[in-house]
Amino acid sequence: MATGILTGVSDLTEIRDAARAFRAERDWEKFQDPKSVMLALVGEVGELAELMQWLPAGRARELLTEEPLRTAVADELSDVLIYLVTLADKLDVDLGAAALRKIEKSGEKHPAAVVRGRAPASATWMTGQQHLSEGTDV
Amino acid sequence: MATGILTGVSDLTEIRDAARAFRAERDWEKFQDPKSVMLALVGEVGELAELMQWLPAGRARELLTEEPLRTAVADELSDVLIYLVTLADKLDVDLGAAALRKIEKSGEKHPAAVVRGRAPASATWMTGQQHLSEGTDV
Amino acid sequence: MATGILTGVSDLTEIRDAARAFRAERDWEKFQDPKSVMLALVGEVGELAELMQWLPAGRARELLTEEPLRTAVADELSDVLIYLVTLADKLDVDLGAAALRKIEKSGEKHPAAVVRGRAPASATWMTGQQHLSEGTDV
Amino acid sequence: MATGILTGVSDLTEIRDAARAFRAERDWEKFQDPKSVMLALVGEVGELAELMQWLPAGRARELLTEEPLRTAVADELSDVLIYLVTLADKLDVDLGAAALRKIEKSGEKHPAAVVRGRAPASATWMTGQQHLSEGTDV
Repeated sequence: MATGILTGVSDLTEIRDAARAFRAERDWEKFQDPKSVMLALVGEVGELAELMQWLPAGRARELLTEEPLRTAVADELSDVLIYLVTLADKLDVDLGAAALRKIEKSGEKHPAAVVRGRAPASATWMTGQQHLSEGTDV
Repeated sequence: MATGILTGVSDLTEIRDAARAFRAERDWEKFQDPKSVMLALVGEVGELAELMQWLPAGRARELLTEEPLRTAVADELSDVLIYLVTLADKLDVDLGAAALRKIEKSGEKHPAAVVRGRAPASATWMTGQQHLSEGTDV
Repeated sequence: MATGILTGVSDLTEIRDAARAFRAERDWEKFQDPKSVMLALVGEVGELAELMQWLPAGRARELLTEEPLRTAVADELSDVLIYLVTLADKLDVDLGAAALRKIEKSGEKHPAAVVRGRAPASATWMTGQQHLSEGTDV
Repeated sequence: MATGILTGVSDLTEIRDAARAFRAERDWEKFQDPKSVMLALVGEVGELAELMQWLPAGRARELLTEEPLRTAVADELSDVLIYLVTLADKLDVDLGAAALRKIEKSGEKHPAAVVRGRAPASATWMTGQQHLSEGTDV
């Protein structure tokens, strides 16, 4: 991985380049139109979900950070990232810059002073949110 | 975004820190157990899929890189990345390092000399793959 | 499967009951809170996506309806349905009735006279849609 | 919905036919190749996930079966089912029969006598499962 100050390399760029080289060496570029890469991303998201599906919510973090799940989790998170970076690459999106801008936009949309301590809003369950805000600890 | 040589900042770290600050300011950490963040990631993957679902495969790339889809694509790719980075953060995974290792592992599993030009293998459609390898251009 | 006129059994009810019996015999009900079943559904959707991800769009239907993919496709579609029926069961939703009502509602929202022959609308790519309507054959 | 004994109609067949008529009236068949329908299914799965993502696991069932979430849940479950039935239709799979066969197959794979009361197995977290089997109530 990029070692920050020493190399000055952005890790998303490094991952993008490693994924590009991987595809080029195998002549796989031709299979990777956007909808196909999107489905591959969905496949990896499914594998990540499977690792945690039956874990009790309250113990999921603990179990997922211990072996035997720990290594599998790192692998599946990686697979999702690799396809996400590939898709961004094919769609000419500077993913790192876009994500930082998106966090900024979200900050303006959900001002801390207004939403503090309430569940992240979703238009459809405003009422449910009121219940939740009384004292949820997931 | 990290400007590489100048700042030496890894962008995944920068996104992780911005997402952490965002949650802390809103006191939203308490809602974000791993299974909940995973479902949020699934929600964003669904929004990304919706942008491209009905596009003809052969024109998807062109249409997705032009407005009005271009901005929406960057936003949805970003949302997926933000939740992915958040999940990795909560599960103590160094996502950038893990992804680079995973590409290396995949390279050993699928040697270029063996798989070159054939569709990425999936055990279940080996026969289908033979058809495909004859000359697919997606 | 329900044989229609002879048995008068709704197949969604039959699947729901078979899934209930399956869980009860294994004492698995306790693991299946809604968010866990949702993640299991996501896992199966991922497996279904993997079967088709690298197929050329124009040949996907043909390859997916032939062996070796045919049996795998039926299995994965089934897995998605089983978890969907399970989730509806746990959330007290009459899935068959709800789906028929939803098709009716969609019919009112997208009158055939207005949308005929144009790509299913998605607010975000209205402009792209105009391009597409000129003569898409996916 | 099919009223069972009176009509003897299978509801999956009825939903399939209603979805077919819906597409035919709008001349939308041409957009719905398997990979596109698959992505539409992913989009709907994402919307369903969004409804429950931040709900505390222990209160999800209660909140999802009350308004304002109740109606939204029925709608999103329906959307997933409609695309699933559409995909099965296009791939010539008798979804009801396949699902009942799959439950039977799963029963043979996971005999009740062996797995009773233990978390549904996933090869990757066998050790975690041992912890869980001691007395989980999600």
